[in-house]
Amino acid sequence: MKKNKLKKLISKIFIKHKLSKNHANICAEALVNAELVGAPSHGLSRLKMYCDRINKKVINPKPRITIKKITESITQIDAKNSIGFVAADIGIKKAIVSAKKTGIGLVGINNSGHYGLSGYYAEQAVNQNLIAMCFTNAPPAIAPHGAIKKLFGTNPICFGTPTSNKVPFILDTSVSMINRGKIRVAAKIGKKIPGGVALDKFGKPTTDAKKALSGVQLPIAGFRGSGLAWMVDILSGVFTGGNHGGKVKDPFDDFTGPQNIGHLFLVMKPNLFVRNYSKRIKENIKRIKKLPKIKAVKEIMYPGQNKYARYKKNLKKSIKIPKNILIEINKLNAV
Amino acid sequence: MKKNKLKKLISKIFIKHKLSKNHANICAEALVNAELVGAPSHGLSRLKMYCDRINKKVINPKPRITIKKITESITQIDAKNSIGFVAADIGIKKAIVSAKKTGIGLVGINNSGHYGLSGYYAEQAVNQNLIAMCFTNAPPAIAPHGAIKKLFGTNPICFGTPTSNKVPFILDTSVSMINRGKIRVAAKIGKKIPGGVALDKFGKPTTDAKKALSGVQLPIAGFRGSGLAWMVDILSGVFTGGNHGGKVKDPFDDFTGPQNIGHLFLVMKPNLFVRNYSKRIKENIKRIKKLPKIKAVKEIMYPGQNKYARYKKNLKKSIKIPKNILIEINKLNAV
Repeated sequence: MKKNKLKKLISKIFIKHKLSKNHANICAEALVNAELVGAPSHGLSRLKMYCDRINKKVINPKPRITIKKITESITQIDAKNSIGFVAADIGIKKAIVSAKKTGIGLVGINNSGHYGLSGYYAEQAVNQNLIAMCFTNAPPAIAPHGAIKKLFGTNPICFGTPTSNKVPFILDTSVSMINRGKIRVAAKIGKKIPGGVALDKFGKPTTDAKKALSGVQLPIAGFRGSGLAWMVDILSGVFTGGNHGGKVKDPFDDFTGPQNIGHLFLVMKPNLFVRNYSKRIKENIKRIKKLPKIKAVKEIMYPGQNKYARYKKNLKKSIKIPKNILIEINKLNAV
Repeated sequence: MKKNKLKKLISKIFIKHKLSKNHANICAEALVNAELVGAPSHGLSRLKMYCDRINKKVINPKPRITIKKITESITQIDAKNSIGFVAADIGIKKAIVSAKKTGIGLVGINNSGHYGLSGYYAEQAVNQNLIAMCFTNAPPAIAPHGAIKKLFGTNPICFGTPTSNKVPFILDTSVSMINRGKIRVAAKIGKKIPGGVALDKFGKPTTDAKKALSGVQLPIAGFRGSGLAWMVDILSGVFTGGNHGGKVKDPFDDFTGPQNIGHLFLVMKPNLFVRNYSKRIKENIKRIKKLPKIKAVKEIMYPGQNKYARYKKNLKKSIKIPKNILIEINKLNAV
């Protein structure tokens, strides 16, 4: 399906599920963007889940989001159980305004939901020539170091910076061996997952995506990854007023209440301490790209470069929708 | 040697190497603290290196450090090639003052040197009931993903938060499989290093510490760890005005000029978005500690807990100094 046609369709479905036109457009934009950057795990495969949560009244389609300015640099947002996309979109825009005005912008959001890809928000700041860090927590997936039960989400660490060229540097890495969304997609289409990334519910290594979902994902680098996941849980959950310590509900399986996910955005002007950030980052990237490479590697890529290439390529093409997801979409639209 | 006696001795040695009494005390405190927390790689084993760098005029023992207040929240420090400890100590104190006043404090430091353990500075903020993040870069040790030559430092990510009890949460993790300092100590005392953490200069896996030092260290989790190392290089180097992109000189081997390391400190009030942070973090830690554990594990520890236990234990004992390092110290004191 063509990008714009798909966006209109998704937006229409969200409006049918009681979202305002503005909020529906924000959500459609984010979902279609996930497809375009090659992250279908955060795209259309989640549409039904969002609609289900609205139907079951655990997402509020007409939230009266409150925005409290704490200082010129700091803003607090209570998302009032909105879809995550909407609160996050407001939040990153506030952080951008603060950073432009005061050099630094910090926004804490609570009572939100899954907001898609962190990189999508970091990119908004980077496109305004700002540096950004984004933190959010997620439902239990990873066992803390030493534990046999999952508690931390895959809790991404996201950092973005302008690069002096049109391709932004966007690091958006979960602290699990692979993204949970990829396991979900594998489970949905019946594919196996790689070894060494998850255990089943009995603590045994598995490549069965469904068994992995009911088991435990492994963090990167043992106690280091576990510590990073804990840091993200504190910054985005404990600090913002969101759920934390394993209390974020799984959006697909648990309809007993809202998720109350927290997000934290930090945005900074790149020229706070130097006059020539643009030149410096260009030089930084140049030096790294010039290094001798391992044989199979044509070019050393910075984080975000591959994603941007996929985006550019996919923009020219029609978006392919897996059959089972197309059936879901048609059903949601037939309501 | 008893802690206080050792501190006096180290301070005396630094004064003999032209540091002011105040600066000498700051450095002695940091080095002895590294021994007490069980990180000898960042302690006495580095004393000779600092003195050598002063003698060879690549550390300025009498730096006229400049402090520029950019806003109430943001401060820039030019360390003028001071020992890293001194500039970092000034920097974290400025960040603390800003955070107390405005909710958030950001300090960028350039023209500095190796500052020891990031956790040492995060802890200063946490002891004042503040949340802290510290970033610093380091000489080339890790190959970027896809490259066969080292360029990134082991570039630690450090995060600290009050816990509502006397043991602070201090995550201080390098993004290499093991800390370079540990390899240095192994090389110095002739021990082997674990497999899978480094390659020799020909790109072959090695457990020989000396070969590892002249080769390449491996990042955690492949492209994820490489991306995190790149992020830290940008935040602490490109952003602050410090060296970056592989230009930080090895303090042990390269006396052709100052290191110009950059540091970035971010400090925040924990109660910016919630009234009961202390209660929330206590609950967070409690939930995680209550999880079922793997057999060999008695207690799930949060980052910083083991270090604190070592500190408490070591405080009661005399500090053991390896023979070769004692010889170095005596020589330095005999100058």
